[in-house]
Amino acid sequence: MDSDHKNIPFADVQPITLSPIGVVESPYAEKFGVPRQPNLVRAAQGAVRMLAPYDQQVAFDGIEGFSHLWLTFGFHQCEGHWRTRVRPPRLGGNQDMGVFATRSPFRPNNLGLSVVRFLGLEGGEGALKLRVSGLDLVDGTPVYDIKPYVPYADALPEATAGFAVSAPPRRLQVRFAEKARQVLHSLADSAAKQTLIEQTLALDPRPAYRQGGDDGRQYGMRLKELEVRWQVSGDVATVTELLPIR
Amino acid sequence: MDSDHKNIPFADVQPITLSPIGVVESPYAEKFGVPRQPNLVRAAQGAVRMLAPYDQQVAFDGIEGFSHLWLTFGFHQCEGHWRTRVRPPRLGGNQDMGVFATRSPFRPNNLGLSVVRFLGLEGGEGALKLRVSGLDLVDGTPVYDIKPYVPYADALPEATAGFAVSAPPRRLQVRFAEKARQVLHSLADSAAKQTLIEQTLALDPRPAYRQGGDDGRQYGMRLKELEVRWQVSGDVATVTELLPIR
Repeated sequence: MDSDHKNIPFADVQPITLSPIGVVESPYAEKFGVPRQPNLVRAAQGAVRMLAPYDQQVAFDGIEGFSHLWLTFGFHQCEGHWRTRVRPPRLGGNQDMGVFATRSPFRPNNLGLSVVRFLGLEGGEGALKLRVSGLDLVDGTPVYDIKPYVPYADALPEATAGFAVSAPPRRLQVRFAEKARQVLHSLADSAAKQTLIEQTLALDPRPAYRQGGDDGRQYGMRLKELEVRWQVSGDVATVTELLPIR
Repeated sequence: MDSDHKNIPFADVQPITLSPIGVVESPYAEKFGVPRQPNLVRAAQGAVRMLAPYDQQVAFDGIEGFSHLWLTFGFHQCEGHWRTRVRPPRLGGNQDMGVFATRSPFRPNNLGLSVVRFLGLEGGEGALKLRVSGLDLVDGTPVYDIKPYVPYADALPEATAGFAVSAPPRRLQVRFAEKARQVLHSLADSAAKQTLIEQTLALDPRPAYRQGGDDGRQYGMRLKELEVRWQVSGDVATVTELLPIR
């Protein structure tokens, strides 16, 4: 075929319009601290709240058989800001790659793709949610499609990758300062919250150029109904403060 | 979180507009006969022809390292025809499932997702193509995103699936009637064309309700520059005619 490829029966290069079918409910209230791929933080549980008219149980009949789902979503903090070249965090943030060789949010059409573990449906007609875990999405992310993960088609163990060959190492140990531990233990579901904090901070959410040593800074992120503040020294992140919000 | 979930920092349930970044060049000129998942027909080679301004080599720098790519595309023969329930071919076409428990094209927003093998870039600025194989897409399909397949995040061998647990069996043997074989051997790249025809017809593209026996019918499909006609008897598909187009 050539570039004067005339014989295209369905060619359609017109723009299309997408409407969200659901919205993500995630413990991650802000972009900072969100894991950079799904399933790195198993404890990141949340849901996709379906919007009308997609909040019908019949539209999900048979989905119980699947352990994982694909979410096609919008990187909605990045609209209109695609770049030809980006600097993936996995390369230390100082090496350029073509945007299509990465999963960077700064891409044309701003579409993201994440596989999440499917835990079950909850709620009924008009209030239907899909409970999921392993989220790498910010609270409020619009979802445009949900598909089952089909292992025979999607799981390609023979696939090879460039720079992102393996999961990022769990970089940091996570400890709680005494004051933070006391707050933690006063909370409902404190064990689940502790796991979520530990798994999230272990990935070292700091910008790549600040990783690899002490930087004397205090970092903060909102995680569920908590403001979490921590410092890093060597390979240890210490949670210095936990502030319940509301 | 509850259904009156107010505290959504980025909630955006407004429609968005997507523009194609590329167009698929596929041997499959029509929907009939296209494999129902990618990689079932390894011989289905083609390309994604990039559209301006995405036809720049720099936007793909680093992609050589990846063996497979995700294509997010539009099922553009199905716009506006989403259904709550569909009948997957894998279930014989006579059992209903919720649309979100399937990969059916009759879905809200009409987005499809396929992983294809990446063979390389060709052409230069303004005529850039990504050569791919394992296509399950019709010629002219609009592409909205291209992402590298990242095995550590995307290959989940532990995932379980409902009705679509294994690849569809290679159902039919494929033979060529003498007249068709003579035409085949007169063509350029006849071995590659033979493999493409054999792999495609082996999947038995007939509607599910006609599979499983002789039906006396002649089927036809366009495959590259050929009109392929065949009949099925028992588990044998016999190519009766091959007609070069143009």
